[in-house]
Amino acid sequence: MRWIFWTAILMMTGVADVLAEPPTAESNLTAIELVQTHANFLWTLIAAALVFFMQAGFSMVEAGFTRSKNAINIMMKNLMDFSMGSIAFWAIGFGLMFGASGTGWFGTSGFFLSDFSPDGDPWVLAFWMFQVVFAATAATIVSGAMAERTKFVGYLLYSAVVSGLIYPIFGSWAWGGLFKGSGWLEGLGFIDFAGSTVVHSVGGWAALAGAIVLGPRLGKYGRDGAIRPILGHNMPLAALGVFILWLGWFGFNPGSTTTADKSIAMIFVNTNLAAAAGAILAMATSWIKFGKPEVGMSLNGALAGLVAITAGCANVSPNSAIIIGAFAGVIVVMAVLFFDRIKIDDPVGAISVHGVCGAWGTLAAGIFNMGGTSLEIIGVQALGIAACFVWTFTTAFIMFKGIAATVGLRVSPEEELEGLDFSEHGGKAYPDFEILSHGGIGFSGGTGSSATEKSGVSSLVPSEEIS
Amino acid sequence: MRWIFWTAILMMTGVADVLAEPPTAESNLTAIELVQTHANFLWTLIAAALVFFMQAGFSMVEAGFTRSKNAINIMMKNLMDFSMGSIAFWAIGFGLMFGASGTGWFGTSGFFLSDFSPDGDPWVLAFWMFQVVFAATAATIVSGAMAERTKFVGYLLYSAVVSGLIYPIFGSWAWGGLFKGSGWLEGLGFIDFAGSTVVHSVGGWAALAGAIVLGPRLGKYGRDGAIRPILGHNMPLAALGVFILWLGWFGFNPGSTTTADKSIAMIFVNTNLAAAAGAILAMATSWIKFGKPEVGMSLNGALAGLVAITAGCANVSPNSAIIIGAFAGVIVVMAVLFFDRIKIDDPVGAISVHGVCGAWGTLAAGIFNMGGTSLEIIGVQALGIAACFVWTFTTAFIMFKGIAATVGLRVSPEEELEGLDFSEHGGKAYPDFEILSHGGIGFSGGTGSSATEKSGVSSLVPSEEIS
Amino acid sequence: MRWIFWTAILMMTGVADVLAEPPTAESNLTAIELVQTHANFLWTLIAAALVFFMQAGFSMVEAGFTRSKNAINIMMKNLMDFSMGSIAFWAIGFGLMFGASGTGWFGTSGFFLSDFSPDGDPWVLAFWMFQVVFAATAATIVSGAMAERTKFVGYLLYSAVVSGLIYPIFGSWAWGGLFKGSGWLEGLGFIDFAGSTVVHSVGGWAALAGAIVLGPRLGKYGRDGAIRPILGHNMPLAALGVFILWLGWFGFNPGSTTTADKSIAMIFVNTNLAAAAGAILAMATSWIKFGKPEVGMSLNGALAGLVAITAGCANVSPNSAIIIGAFAGVIVVMAVLFFDRIKIDDPVGAISVHGVCGAWGTLAAGIFNMGGTSLEIIGVQALGIAACFVWTFTTAFIMFKGIAATVGLRVSPEEELEGLDFSEHGGKAYPDFEILSHGGIGFSGGTGSSATEKSGVSSLVPSEEIS
Repeated sequence: MRWIFWTAILMMTGVADVLAEPPTAESNLTAIELVQTHANFLWTLIAAALVFFMQAGFSMVEAGFTRSKNAINIMMKNLMDFSMGSIAFWAIGFGLMFGASGTGWFGTSGFFLSDFSPDGDPWVLAFWMFQVVFAATAATIVSGAMAERTKFVGYLLYSAVVSGLIYPIFGSWAWGGLFKGSGWLEGLGFIDFAGSTVVHSVGGWAALAGAIVLGPRLGKYGRDGAIRPILGHNMPLAALGVFILWLGWFGFNPGSTTTADKSIAMIFVNTNLAAAAGAILAMATSWIKFGKPEVGMSLNGALAGLVAITAGCANVSPNSAIIIGAFAGVIVVMAVLFFDRIKIDDPVGAISVHGVCGAWGTLAAGIFNMGGTSLEIIGVQALGIAACFVWTFTTAFIMFKGIAATVGLRVSPEEELEGLDFSEHGGKAYPDFEILSHGGIGFSGGTGSSATEKSGVSSLVPSEEIS
Repeated sequence: MRWIFWTAILMMTGVADVLAEPPTAESNLTAIELVQTHANFLWTLIAAALVFFMQAGFSMVEAGFTRSKNAINIMMKNLMDFSMGSIAFWAIGFGLMFGASGTGWFGTSGFFLSDFSPDGDPWVLAFWMFQVVFAATAATIVSGAMAERTKFVGYLLYSAVVSGLIYPIFGSWAWGGLFKGSGWLEGLGFIDFAGSTVVHSVGGWAALAGAIVLGPRLGKYGRDGAIRPILGHNMPLAALGVFILWLGWFGFNPGSTTTADKSIAMIFVNTNLAAAAGAILAMATSWIKFGKPEVGMSLNGALAGLVAITAGCANVSPNSAIIIGAFAGVIVVMAVLFFDRIKIDDPVGAISVHGVCGAWGTLAAGIFNMGGTSLEIIGVQALGIAACFVWTFTTAFIMFKGIAATVGLRVSPEEELEGLDFSEHGGKAYPDFEILSHGGIGFSGGTGSSATEKSGVSSLVPSEEIS
Repeated sequence: MRWIFWTAILMMTGVADVLAEPPTAESNLTAIELVQTHANFLWTLIAAALVFFMQAGFSMVEAGFTRSKNAINIMMKNLMDFSMGSIAFWAIGFGLMFGASGTGWFGTSGFFLSDFSPDGDPWVLAFWMFQVVFAATAATIVSGAMAERTKFVGYLLYSAVVSGLIYPIFGSWAWGGLFKGSGWLEGLGFIDFAGSTVVHSVGGWAALAGAIVLGPRLGKYGRDGAIRPILGHNMPLAALGVFILWLGWFGFNPGSTTTADKSIAMIFVNTNLAAAAGAILAMATSWIKFGKPEVGMSLNGALAGLVAITAGCANVSPNSAIIIGAFAGVIVVMAVLFFDRIKIDDPVGAISVHGVCGAWGTLAAGIFNMGGTSLEIIGVQALGIAACFVWTFTTAFIMFKGIAATVGLRVSPEEELEGLDFSEHGGKAYPDFEILSHGGIGFSGGTGSSATEKSGVSSLVPSEEIS
């Protein structure tokens, strides 16, 4: 009787299929393994959903840190890089990254999800789902550094190339072995558990190439060498974005286990402590530098800590996580000021947060490795960091130059002044509201904060610093 | 010793209750089954939480696509349709939909959650929790099409009727058998896994009835036949809403298994690919139609893909999901233009997204069925679609006429011009900001986008198209 | 063969470690227990992520209900109370709350997560992660009542003290036994499953102390005794915040099981029904009081229901949950009016929502106890409520007085008028938008709603009531 009842319930889950009647130790074991597998599917897919939500976070951060006249364009970019990226990663990217590989340089099977057959193991689908949200993250990072001046058609093109080619090929070097492939970097023992380098630095260095090829926004750097802050238009939106990203990282890092086991606890804790330390130290650094605790820097500090702990989240202790995050909080402020000083205009600080702190985190994963460290371990980490920079910056630079020479990468000065919302999309983000005619461009000393007066670095303060 | 330790831990979870000492194959099997049941509870309830969050998504989309003077009213409506809907579904709806049924037309037991007793099986509670968020979704869809002119007291009334009567009765026809009931449509083999028809078309056709009974917003259709765009006031908010809805759909579709097993992987992938394809194709269609990639259409395209894959997410392949989503992306643009042409004013495109694409998705679930299709399968799908339209449109039309004749369905023209925030709620959504006196009403050729100039369809462009 | 395959897969999860070859009933049982433990980790950590997200909810509610000139400050406060709170709870709070305790008054071990060793049981990390988000919640509640006038450096100080000392010491009395400690209140049988008192009332009574020490905002109470509404600047943001909080509560309450079992179903249902009832009754109460259904009250009503059900969510029936939530919805409106009448200025209603409704919910958990109630049970509940008030209000009052006397608790009148965004952080939240010069201060009869005219209580209506 009882048997019949349970069997009916368990039919749905497949547990019934592996039961013997009467049960034996062997049939029970198979059932136990199946229940654990169900938990693994569940966790991997819930984590994928959390990482998907990071797209909303990136959208809000990027929109909040830029001007209201480009807000529609930013929404369109984030919606489309995920949509195009999903299709590109389905068609090409996944096969390049995780397909069977004879060389360790890229995979050559599994395009168009052809590894999946309806009566086969659906793990490939769960794994694809988790990986596609990572691919789209790499692409969306680029968008921040190139905001407020990139032609939409050029954006569509490059985001598909990043998701479908640049990211997956580097990814196959470090992570191909997680499925059917094998990568030369992972073969050397390269540690990048959840992608400080694989995801964030790839995004960051592609962003660097893009910002260089595009050039700065109009009015950002005066002829007299002055650096003018261009204020972000909505700080609550930016903060909401950072909270969403922090939440999403609880899928990004512990979800990278793709198994439901006890190890996710330490990854959660490390992720959280690094973010907290990053926010605090970035706030403190901005306070010292500008005389006031600055919101853009503090928000980016949390992200910097999150990016930095991503590589080592599974192999460093909570105490080390605090140190890694704290350093990232200081580094990100310095890096933002540095890129502004050399006139690379990155409206949201994406290069500093994702590129620089991704590199720092990857190095730190070797230095603070709980199993002990060595020059060799650190050397492999450095090699991975360098390989990422060389591959990504080079290919992205060529790609951006190619786009600029063909369909065009940058809008006209008239379109840029008018705002991309109207020129590219025929719309207005906030038609009910009175928008100030200066269009969000501040001039040093004008809307400058008292902070900048104290520290005398007003000409170095990028947009998000005094927002 | 070890026994004592584990027993203490497992007391809480109930696993201890089913253990024998010493363990036998039979006692172990019972324990295995219990752990799987725990996973099923967990997944069903986490999915319910994700679907609940769709209420926030609907609120943001609806507010973003409408004018600032009605934003409080929209928040109140979304808060209240979920709150009233929860109580209505607890008292009446759940019993009608899932209670024991002799006829297959509605259930007659389980009102006020009377199926639950503290020492009984709590599955009824987990199942109710998942179903109540669906009921509220159906109700909240209606609110979008009737935005900016509906009397609040009339809204409360109809949203309780939709959640408590119209939705559950149709639902019992298709899904009653999931619990204690039985439905005539499911008896015929009707496929609607997660509710393209049961939830979305019910919402969409009720919205159609509501929009017809209410009539268009003041100023929307000129006496000269001109169609004036009424611009949405906050595009980042609308985009955030779409991202939240996309996230919520990862609960809506795979959660409809109500079991934690491997089958959720394909449902996740299908859901994501259909949404991506829908967004891309809607963008492309808007680009061709208006000369520019339009944000409102692109956002609605993602939703259209999501609605369309909802019926077939568990029985079509990923490749088919892309096709289903892509078609939905084209269909939604056409449908929005169609309803505007026949002067049915739907401020957010709810009828097109949920009604029309819900019908398309239900048909597609039959056409692309992985197990093969036939005229009979497609015939049953068509029957279900038609039954939904007839039942929902008719009952909703009568209901709205009844409300209009008694407590009133529409605010006065003065109240509509002033905005519902002040007239209905005595408040202002944005008191610190300077609001433009045109109150967000655009006039053709005025704030019209260059897109509309090119395509010459300016008089056909509804609000969200040139926002 | 099959053995080898499974073993490889299960290596990662640790299930392989407990397998015997061939399997026996005993080895299987150990494996079953491990899979259940994995589910417990998963649920506890996913729930922690949901509770973390409540930080975003609190930020949006607080920002939405206050003026635009203080929005950056509110983002900084919420970011920093979580960041500082995470570090404080890591260093001190967790040990005080859950460390081994000889006295039942506070713990004395486990500081700096020293209970965790890499080769030990990671449960301490999962448990810490869940508890740290609770600690930060207590701290962030305070911030709402003290908004728009508190010095940032004073804020940092007090939020660390709340998270690191005041909250954990009270927490150890009621919850210490959940880990290594033991508490005198739980020893008496005090029921507070998820923290109506432990988290919410602690936050609420600390908020009360803070609001008293700080004094009201400039312009809130006129010399003639008039009470001027100060309007919140963004109602959609506030509503989004409430939806996020409601979502987060699905982690807060059912996650407090820290086990994945069937009991979470009833907790989900109770949580949802209480919130719904709270929103409806608060709306109805505001409708009766002011003549219109008011958005701020309705939103706070949902929160009031959530706070109230938190104590009893696991030991009252769904029917009782509706009653508990409904009462909370009425109580919160009365309490908001009361505190305004006695000129305690609480911009968001935090004292009423969290302090008062937390006390109500704790009492209700005794009254509606499914296992039966008694004067003794109710007496213990009352004792816990009183102990919380005495401990929290007293220590918080002393702390705030100490901060006021040293680093300072309140900004200067000039800074307050200018807004904390600029004076404390050198920024502007919305630089692109035209901000009205009245800075969001309404005067009775000016922006007052018709609601207030009808009921004649315009001078009693606090900010969120006519927003």
